Amino acid sequence: MTKAEDVGGIDRGRRRLIAGAALGGSSVLMARTAMAQAAGPLVPQSMLEQGQPVVTPPYGVPSKFEKDVVRRPTDGTPTDLSSWSFTPLQDLHGIITPNGLFYERHHNGVPTIDPDQHKLMIHGLVERPLVFTMNDLMRFPAVSVIHFLECSGNSLSEYGSKPAANVQTSHGLLSCVEWTGVRLSTLLDAVGVKPEGKWILAEGADAAAMTRSIPMEKALDDALIAFGQNGEALRPEQGYPVRLLLPGFEGNMSIKWLRRLKVGDQPFMTREETSKYTDLMPDGKARQFTFTMQAKSVITSPAAGGMIEGGPGPVQISGIAWSGAGRVKKVDVSVDGGRSWSEATLDGEPLPKALTRFRLPWRWDGSPTVIASRVTDETGYVQPTRKDLISERGNAYTYHYNAIAPWKIGQNGEVTNAYAAGA
Amino acid sequence: MTKAEDVGGIDRGRRRLIAGAALGGSSVLMARTAMAQAAGPLVPQSMLEQGQPVVTPPYGVPSKFEKDVVRRPTDGTPTDLSSWSFTPLQDLHGIITPNGLFYERHHNGVPTIDPDQHKLMIHGLVERPLVFTMNDLMRFPAVSVIHFLECSGNSLSEYGSKPAANVQTSHGLLSCVEWTGVRLSTLLDAVGVKPEGKWILAEGADAAAMTRSIPMEKALDDALIAFGQNGEALRPEQGYPVRLLLPGFEGNMSIKWLRRLKVGDQPFMTREETSKYTDLMPDGKARQFTFTMQAKSVITSPAAGGMIEGGPGPVQISGIAWSGAGRVKKVDVSVDGGRSWSEATLDGEPLPKALTRFRLPWRWDGSPTVIASRVTDETGYVQPTRKDLISERGNAYTYHYNAIAPWKIGQNGEVTNAYAAGA
Repeated sequence: MTKAEDVGGIDRGRRRLIAGAALGGSSVLMARTAMAQAAGPLVPQSMLEQGQPVVTPPYGVPSKFEKDVVRRPTDGTPTDLSSWSFTPLQDLHGIITPNGLFYERHHNGVPTIDPDQHKLMIHGLVERPLVFTMNDLMRFPAVSVIHFLECSGNSLSEYGSKPAANVQTSHGLLSCVEWTGVRLSTLLDAVGVKPEGKWILAEGADAAAMTRSIPMEKALDDALIAFGQNGEALRPEQGYPVRLLLPGFEGNMSIKWLRRLKVGDQPFMTREETSKYTDLMPDGKARQFTFTMQAKSVITSPAAGGMIEGGPGPVQISGIAWSGAGRVKKVDVSVDGGRSWSEATLDGEPLPKALTRFRLPWRWDGSPTVIASRVTDETGYVQPTRKDLISERGNAYTYHYNAIAPWKIGQNGEVTNAYAAGA
Repeated sequence: MTKAEDVGGIDRGRRRLIAGAALGGSSVLMARTAMAQAAGPLVPQSMLEQGQPVVTPPYGVPSKFEKDVVRRPTDGTPTDLSSWSFTPLQDLHGIITPNGLFYERHHNGVPTIDPDQHKLMIHGLVERPLVFTMNDLMRFPAVSVIHFLECSGNSLSEYGSKPAANVQTSHGLLSCVEWTGVRLSTLLDAVGVKPEGKWILAEGADAAAMTRSIPMEKALDDALIAFGQNGEALRPEQGYPVRLLLPGFEGNMSIKWLRRLKVGDQPFMTREETSKYTDLMPDGKARQFTFTMQAKSVITSPAAGGMIEGGPGPVQISGIAWSGAGRVKKVDVSVDGGRSWSEATLDGEPLPKALTRFRLPWRWDGSPTVIASRVTDETGYVQPTRKDLISERGNAYTYHYNAIAPWKIGQNGEVTNAYAAGA
């Protein structure tokens, strides 16, 4: 990307100017530069009038030109109360998801909870059952850490015959923020878990009374009782004022609006881990307690539902990779439908159980092709193809889809889901 | 924090319950637990009614109970156009500042800029002057990286005889986000800087035409042409659609609404680096081009303007530390007015030129005292006392205040600025 023609190649109009300059006709380019320098019509309107004052509004909002960058609901649920909305991955640049765009999955809507009234009780097989106010929790030692959260149903469209038309719908039940909270192990120390305590029932204060069973190992490892999200308080949709966070586990287990933790000696077999959130295999048996979200990656730009604006030339391929088992080790990218792969650059050191942003500069020659990414995590696990995934799991499986996502680029620059396009 | 009495100490009411339990009177505590378990009045209202549907609204907002967590304007400027607003550090938990709470400093208000119309020109001592659209920029290789930004005037109140009453006003011209953009060095490669090019004039498209001179070494090091902020597009107050970002340098140099970079052979001596943003010394001379923000730290909880809620007992001391020269090496905390210091725990590995969150568990016995933090960065630089800072710089100095900030805790738990309190 260092040659003048490369830069010129970005914009066909400008390429002609630069070609002219290279031929000695630099007057055209100089004239354009001089125009841009001159006062008069080329000074933008923004320099000719005073702007908006500070704190307009006191809590800032995005530019009006970004009004289409929003969470979008599924059209696949009969109600918008037990439903979900998708993060616009195609518009995001790094690994942090801004709080206003964090995906949603609610089982009976978002409750309104006054933090001064909210309490968290820990009871069951413990020495000292206790009830904590939010102020109590805030006085314990806390920690801030960046982790992704992914719905186990993310990409379920890709199992079937109607794959999603865009990356927001195919992969957008995924977000990543800096969480702050108290380690659950700290609170369990405070109440004193009895030796026979092996599982914990977590219950939300929503109208679904969402409940899941958490293995004690995870509770004592990296589980958080989280009250912060990207520095500020949790958003209502994310469990305000307090939620459980189980890094790397399927999203629904990180119970929001957390009101109760009951220690028991076995799993509690709630609705959400018997009829729901189990994985039906071809032999009619179901996998239960499939907690960990396996390694997965997706190209977010250019991505299905989008467009390469401005025609052939240099393009940055950019995407995200993650693993519930730990750190991303590497991401390979193919620009020829999977025949060959190149290792992408990662932004900084990958963090455990967090999104990792990958990038690969590419020169698109204008021909139709298929691009895709493939992650390998620190355990050595390699993201599978769709064919391999389905041949192992069959067609009744709904959750934990993590196969390679191929995007087809058309001659006009249009990007589509290669499976939706019939590939 | 692992003994029952420790937890009980958090809440005096509960401590009595636990004391009762320890004496064999566990029925009181059990009764409370049983009440919390029972159906009926103790089931919160949030479980008895359906919540809000998804995408209410499509771009999410904080809970209504967080309405006081906002940027607050200074009362020290005659206009709200050339003015500033402060980040509410006392309410933040980690190192990321949510975009809606990023501090502001504008020189003639916030312009409204259509990204489809915006252009960035690079000219002057270059081989190929070029004009870039936003789409052009998006096709270059980019990078995402977490950095703080601090106004050089942050904490200027602390030089004088009227120190700020709260940490939002004393330290809130400071924020930290994940930025995404193209390295300026990449664009300079594209235009070809001539050998005599040593400085770059950066100009904003705001009504102040804000301009600063940037040394070429910084431009070729880690300077970014940034368009992303915590994943999404820059906010209007932060330079939408594109800004310069000079990690570790005083904030005003990271020109917002960037429209022009002109390469020259010497600094351009703009208004903002001659009359403004220079540092007047006691001998009448001024320091110019004092770019780097030196190491600094502050306790944000408990902090001036706040309160230890709930009385004596365990308290988490938490704060932030940063250095424009690189990484934070360690943070020491004193709870006895600076007589003794203990090393705080840091959240994760400190990132270069980013906020680092530190924490220290403490048991407040209810006596008045003074708490403070002191950072050491990787260069070995130690945050100075106010006395040392002022004795070196004198009283006319306005910018780059980075001294230790002591907070006084009163018997009632009220926290005040120890200098404001006359210490």
